[in-house]
Amino acid sequence: MVRVAIIGATGYTAYEAMVILLRHGGAKVTYLTALPEECGPVEKVFGSLRGRLAVPVEPMVLEKLAERADAALCCLPHKASMGYVPQLLRAGLKVVDLSADYRLHDAGLYERVYQTKHADPENLSRAAFGLPELFRERIRGASLVANPGCYPTAASLALAPLVREGLIAMDDIVVNAVSGASGAGRKASLGFHFPEMNENLFAYAVGTHRHQPEIEQILRDFSGRSAAVLFVPHVASFDRGMAASIYCRSVRAVEAQGLHELYRAFYAQEPFVRVLQEPPKIKHVAGTNFADVYATAAQGRVVVFSAIDNLIKGAAGQAVQNLNIICGMAETTGLL
Amino acid sequence: MVRVAIIGATGYTAYEAMVILLRHGGAKVTYLTALPEECGPVEKVFGSLRGRLAVPVEPMVLEKLAERADAALCCLPHKASMGYVPQLLRAGLKVVDLSADYRLHDAGLYERVYQTKHADPENLSRAAFGLPELFRERIRGASLVANPGCYPTAASLALAPLVREGLIAMDDIVVNAVSGASGAGRKASLGFHFPEMNENLFAYAVGTHRHQPEIEQILRDFSGRSAAVLFVPHVASFDRGMAASIYCRSVRAVEAQGLHELYRAFYAQEPFVRVLQEPPKIKHVAGTNFADVYATAAQGRVVVFSAIDNLIKGAAGQAVQNLNIICGMAETTGLL
Amino acid sequence: MVRVAIIGATGYTAYEAMVILLRHGGAKVTYLTALPEECGPVEKVFGSLRGRLAVPVEPMVLEKLAERADAALCCLPHKASMGYVPQLLRAGLKVVDLSADYRLHDAGLYERVYQTKHADPENLSRAAFGLPELFRERIRGASLVANPGCYPTAASLALAPLVREGLIAMDDIVVNAVSGASGAGRKASLGFHFPEMNENLFAYAVGTHRHQPEIEQILRDFSGRSAAVLFVPHVASFDRGMAASIYCRSVRAVEAQGLHELYRAFYAQEPFVRVLQEPPKIKHVAGTNFADVYATAAQGRVVVFSAIDNLIKGAAGQAVQNLNIICGMAETTGLL
Amino acid sequence: MVRVAIIGATGYTAYEAMVILLRHGGAKVTYLTALPEECGPVEKVFGSLRGRLAVPVEPMVLEKLAERADAALCCLPHKASMGYVPQLLRAGLKVVDLSADYRLHDAGLYERVYQTKHADPENLSRAAFGLPELFRERIRGASLVANPGCYPTAASLALAPLVREGLIAMDDIVVNAVSGASGAGRKASLGFHFPEMNENLFAYAVGTHRHQPEIEQILRDFSGRSAAVLFVPHVASFDRGMAASIYCRSVRAVEAQGLHELYRAFYAQEPFVRVLQEPPKIKHVAGTNFADVYATAAQGRVVVFSAIDNLIKGAAGQAVQNLNIICGMAETTGLL
Repeated sequence: MVRVAIIGATGYTAYEAMVILLRHGGAKVTYLTALPEECGPVEKVFGSLRGRLAVPVEPMVLEKLAERADAALCCLPHKASMGYVPQLLRAGLKVVDLSADYRLHDAGLYERVYQTKHADPENLSRAAFGLPELFRERIRGASLVANPGCYPTAASLALAPLVREGLIAMDDIVVNAVSGASGAGRKASLGFHFPEMNENLFAYAVGTHRHQPEIEQILRDFSGRSAAVLFVPHVASFDRGMAASIYCRSVRAVEAQGLHELYRAFYAQEPFVRVLQEPPKIKHVAGTNFADVYATAAQGRVVVFSAIDNLIKGAAGQAVQNLNIICGMAETTGLL
Repeated sequence: MVRVAIIGATGYTAYEAMVILLRHGGAKVTYLTALPEECGPVEKVFGSLRGRLAVPVEPMVLEKLAERADAALCCLPHKASMGYVPQLLRAGLKVVDLSADYRLHDAGLYERVYQTKHADPENLSRAAFGLPELFRERIRGASLVANPGCYPTAASLALAPLVREGLIAMDDIVVNAVSGASGAGRKASLGFHFPEMNENLFAYAVGTHRHQPEIEQILRDFSGRSAAVLFVPHVASFDRGMAASIYCRSVRAVEAQGLHELYRAFYAQEPFVRVLQEPPKIKHVAGTNFADVYATAAQGRVVVFSAIDNLIKGAAGQAVQNLNIICGMAETTGLL
Repeated sequence: MVRVAIIGATGYTAYEAMVILLRHGGAKVTYLTALPEECGPVEKVFGSLRGRLAVPVEPMVLEKLAERADAALCCLPHKASMGYVPQLLRAGLKVVDLSADYRLHDAGLYERVYQTKHADPENLSRAAFGLPELFRERIRGASLVANPGCYPTAASLALAPLVREGLIAMDDIVVNAVSGASGAGRKASLGFHFPEMNENLFAYAVGTHRHQPEIEQILRDFSGRSAAVLFVPHVASFDRGMAASIYCRSVRAVEAQGLHELYRAFYAQEPFVRVLQEPPKIKHVAGTNFADVYATAAQGRVVVFSAIDNLIKGAAGQAVQNLNIICGMAETTGLL
Repeated sequence: MVRVAIIGATGYTAYEAMVILLRHGGAKVTYLTALPEECGPVEKVFGSLRGRLAVPVEPMVLEKLAERADAALCCLPHKASMGYVPQLLRAGLKVVDLSADYRLHDAGLYERVYQTKHADPENLSRAAFGLPELFRERIRGASLVANPGCYPTAASLALAPLVREGLIAMDDIVVNAVSGASGAGRKASLGFHFPEMNENLFAYAVGTHRHQPEIEQILRDFSGRSAAVLFVPHVASFDRGMAASIYCRSVRAVEAQGLHELYRAFYAQEPFVRVLQEPPKIKHVAGTNFADVYATAAQGRVVVFSAIDNLIKGAAGQAVQNLNIICGMAETTGLL
C-alpha cells in the first residue's frame, strides 16, 4: 500500500485526489497538509468527506512527511509549489506536482510566463511531464512528475495524432476551450459568485493564458517540430468538465473516415482515451479519468473535439495515473 | 416624471429597480449613490446596463439629492439604512426603504432581532409597511414605506386569506421556504462560490431567521390576532425566485375547492396575485412582480404554496409598486 | 465474485448501479437486459460507460439469467417489475427489486395506491424491506429485497430515532422534501425539458404521492405504532440529491443538544448515516451512499433534516448495500 | 397602436415576443394562433403569462387575421412558415417571419440546405433580410422581413466591421458558437431532458449547420465579396444567450486598439450594439436586445467575440425591432 501525502489539501484538486484514493486499493491518503489557519478535521473543509477519511489536515512537518508517506501529490498553487517540492524530494518521496511549476522545461520561459524567477531549476530539469499517453516512458523512472494543466491535457490529446502524422500546419492551430467553473479554484470572488456565474459563459485571457506555451511545448516535444497555437479559454456555468474545439489547417487532403481510423489506431492501447464518431459531451466524461476525442474534416479544415473532466483527467485523476506509473502499480488502478 | 434616487446602487435589488425604472414611463432614475470606492459608470458595476442608463454612481451628497430627485429607493443593508433615511426625508423625498430597518414597528423588537439599538425611532413610528395587498390604505399617504422582506411577502400573501377568515390555528404555522441564491446578496463568500452552491440546496437559520418576527407581525397586524410561526428558510442553486410551502392546522373542516374560492375572492381585485389550482412554479414568476398562490387541504391540514421572484415582488418590484402608490401613479405602472 | 444481472438496464438507477459495481471488487455486472428495441452496446445508452463496461444490453432470456448471474438488481418500473421478479427468483437468483412492487406488505394497500392488482402476492409476503439501518436482521436471510423509495429513505432515517424514542406525536408529521430532477426518470417530457425545468422548483402530488403510505408503513413497522404523515414532494433544478425538512410535534420537552445526542447514539454503528450539527447540504451527499441527518428543536417543534443522493442511497447504492448483505459481503463494499 | 398577430404562438420565440409586446406601448398582441390541439387560454401554454395577456390561442382563421391585426410575427418552424406567409400578406398584414424560410435569397440554395423545394419563390424574392444594423434601408419599405437566425445575428454583427474594412481573408473564418438550450425549441427530447442536458456542453452539426450558408450570404451581401465560413455550433446547460468566438486571418497588420476604434466608429449610431474592451458575458445580454462585441488581435489573428440573447436579439427582440421599422415606429420602442 503506497502511503500518500497530499500537500495543499484544501483545494478542489486535492479533494478529488482524496476521493479517488479512497477507492484506490493500492494507495491511501496518510497525511494531509495545509497552512496552519486551514487545519483541522478534513470534514470541516470538505463536508462530503465526513466519515470517509479520518486523516486530519495538519501543518506540514518535514519529519512527519518522511515517516508517514511514500509519495506526495503536491496540490499547491504555482509559485508556492516550487518552495515545497525540493523538501518533498529530499524527504525521499516520489512527487507528482499538480501546479505549473515544473511543467515548462525552460526556466527562462517559466519566468516570462509566470513573472517570477524559478526557484528550483535543478529539479525542473529532472521533472518528467506527466501526460502518460504521450510521454509514458519518460515518466516511468521519474521521481518528480509535473502533472499537466487541464487545458493542455484536453488540447494535446486531441492534437497528438495529427502532429505525429504531420497532417496539419503547425503554425495554424486554434484551440477554443470551455471549462467548468471549478477550474477557477476554491477562492471566492465576485466573478464566480453564484448569481454572477450562473447561466453565464465568457472568454478570458484571449491569447495570453499561461497554458498556451504549455500546449506548444507538448506539441513540440511530441512531434519534434515547433508549434504556434492560439488558445482561447472560456468558462461556463457548470461545475466540472472541459471541452476543447480545435481548428487546424491540413497540409494534405483528409476526410473524416481517415481521421477516425488514424485516431483509433493511435489510441488503440490507451485505457483512458475514447475515440468517438461524434462530438464528445462533457457529461459523458464528468467524474471520470477519460478523454473523449473526435476528429473530422469540414470546410477544408481538420476540426478536433475533446472533452475531459478538468478536475480528474485534467488534474487529480491524471496525477493518480502518474502516481500509479512511478510507484509501479497498474496504471488504471483506482481510475476506472 | 418622478425623479428617483437609488441609494446603495451596487446590490442586486438596486439593479432590479434600475431595470424596472428603465421601462416605467412615469418615473426614472436620476441619481445613483454608493460608497466612494464603488463609484463610477454604472456599467462598471452592472455590465448589463451599458448603453441603457447614463446615470453614474456617485457618493451621496445631500444638496444633490434634493435637486435631482423627488423620491428615493433606499437599497442599503439593514443597520446602514436607518442612518440615511432621515436625511432623505429631510431633503423632502418620499422614501421606500428596502432594508429591514423600518419594518418592525417595535424598536425593542428590532433591537432584539437585529442586535442593535434603533437609531431613528421617530421615523420608525411613521413608516408604513409596504405590502400593498394587505395594507394599501396605510401606504397611500405615507412618506416613508418599509418595503417587506422577500420571505415575509411570500408567506403573508399565502396566509392572509386564512388568517382573515379565521380558518387556521394561529400558533401552528410552519413556513418552509426556498430562495434562489441571489437572496444572499452580491458579496462573494465561499458558501455562494459557484462550485460550492451549484447543484446544491440546504436549510439555514432554522427558527432563528430575522424574517420570522416580521411574518408574525404582518399576520397580527392584518388579522388582529397574534401568531406564532416556525420559519425555515432554504437556499438552492437557482438565481432568482422563491417558493414557500406552508403547513397549517385548520380549526374547522375545509376542502380544496372552498379554499380555492376563498382565495379567488380574496385576491379578485389584486393585479399582482394569481390564484392557481396547482402548486406554483418559480419559473412562472421569475422576472415578474407576481405572486402565485395555491391553497389546498391534505391529511387534515391546510397547505398553501406561494412563489414570487425574490428580487422583484420580494424587493425591487414591490418597492416600485409602493413608489407608484405614494407618488400617485397607477399601481401597476412599469410592473406588468 | 457475485455475478449480477441488471434487469431494466436503461434507466438512471440501473446506470448508477453499473458505475458502483465497476468499483465494487466483490460483485460485477454480467448481464444487462432491456426491451428489444433498447438493446445494443451499453455505451449507446450511456455514453459515459464507453470503454468501461463490455457487457451488452440484451433482451432477457431466462436460461441466460440462470447461467450468467447469481443475483439481480431489478430496475424496472413499478407494475412491470412484479411480472419479472418471480422469474428471477425461480431462476435461483437473489433479487433486489428497486421498484415499488414489493414495498407495501399489504396487497390491498398496493392496489389502492398503485391502482392495479398485485400480480405476485406470494413473493410480496416474503420480501424484506431493504432499509438496512432499520431492518437489517430481516434483510439478512432474504432472497427478495424490496429496495425502499428515495423519499421514504430520506424521511425514515430522519424520523427513526424520534419514533423509537416515542418523542413525537405520530399523527402530526409533515415531510417537506425536494428532489433533483433525475428522480423523474429518463423519459423525456415537457415538464422536464431543460428550458422548462432549469432554474425552477415546484411542489407536486401534495398529500397524494405514493411514497406517503410507504413512509407510514416504515414508521409503523419500526416503532410498532401507527403513523400519519403529510408528505409534500418538490422537484428542483439540480441533477441529483434530495433534502427532507421534517416538522414534528414533540410530546415532551426536548432541546437541540439532547436530540443530537439521541441521534449520535442511535446511528453510532451505522456506516452510512452521518449525524450533523447543522442542516445537511445536498452537495455533501451527492455521489455518495450517505444520509446526513440533523435534528433540532425550534418554536416548540422538533425539526429534522436529512439529505441523500436520490439515485444512490435513495436507489442504486442502497440496492448494492442490500445485495452486499444478502450475498454475505461486507455491507460497505463498493460504497465508500 | 399596431395590432399584432402571432402565428405559431406556442414556442419560445412567440413567448418572448408576447412579453416584449406587453411592455411595448406602440404595438400590442391581438391574435394568437396555433394548431387546433394546442389552443386555449395562453396561460395554459405559458404559465408566466397568466393575468398578463387576455388573448386566447386560437386556430388561424383568415378573416379574423385581417380584422384583428395590422402585422404578424410568424413564429412557425421553417418549411411550415412558407405555407402561411402568403396568406398573411394577402390579408394585408406586414409580416416579420422568424423562420428560415425567407432568409436565403436563392431558392436553389434553400432547397439544398433545407431539403425541400421552396413553396413561395415570389415572396422570397421580395423579402428583406432583417438585420437592421447591416441592412436597415432595405428593411424600411418591406412588407415581408425575414428575421435572421440567432447564430447568423451573433456572427455577422461581430464580423461586419472587418469585412466592410477588408481586413480579413474572406475564406478563412471560423465561427465557434455556444447557445443556451432554449435554442433547441420547446419540443421535449431525450437530448434536452434536464438530467441529460444539465451540467453539459457539446458541439453538433459540425460544418453542416443550416446557419452556415446564412452567415456566408450576409457577409457577401454586406461586403460584396464571397465568404467561406466554418461554423461550429455548441449547446450548453443554460437557458438563454449565445456567445460566438470568431477566428479570422488578417490581411494586413492590425492591433487591438485599432480594432476597438474601428468597431466603435462602425457601431457608433447603433442603439443595440455595444462595443466592449473585454470579452462579452452572456449574462450581460440575457433578457435584452443587445449584442455585445469585442475584437482583438492575438497570435497574428483577429479574434472577435459577440454575445446576444438567442431568443431576443437572436429572435423575438430583433423581430420587434424589424416590426418597429416597417411600421414606422422608433426602432428601439419596447426594446430598451
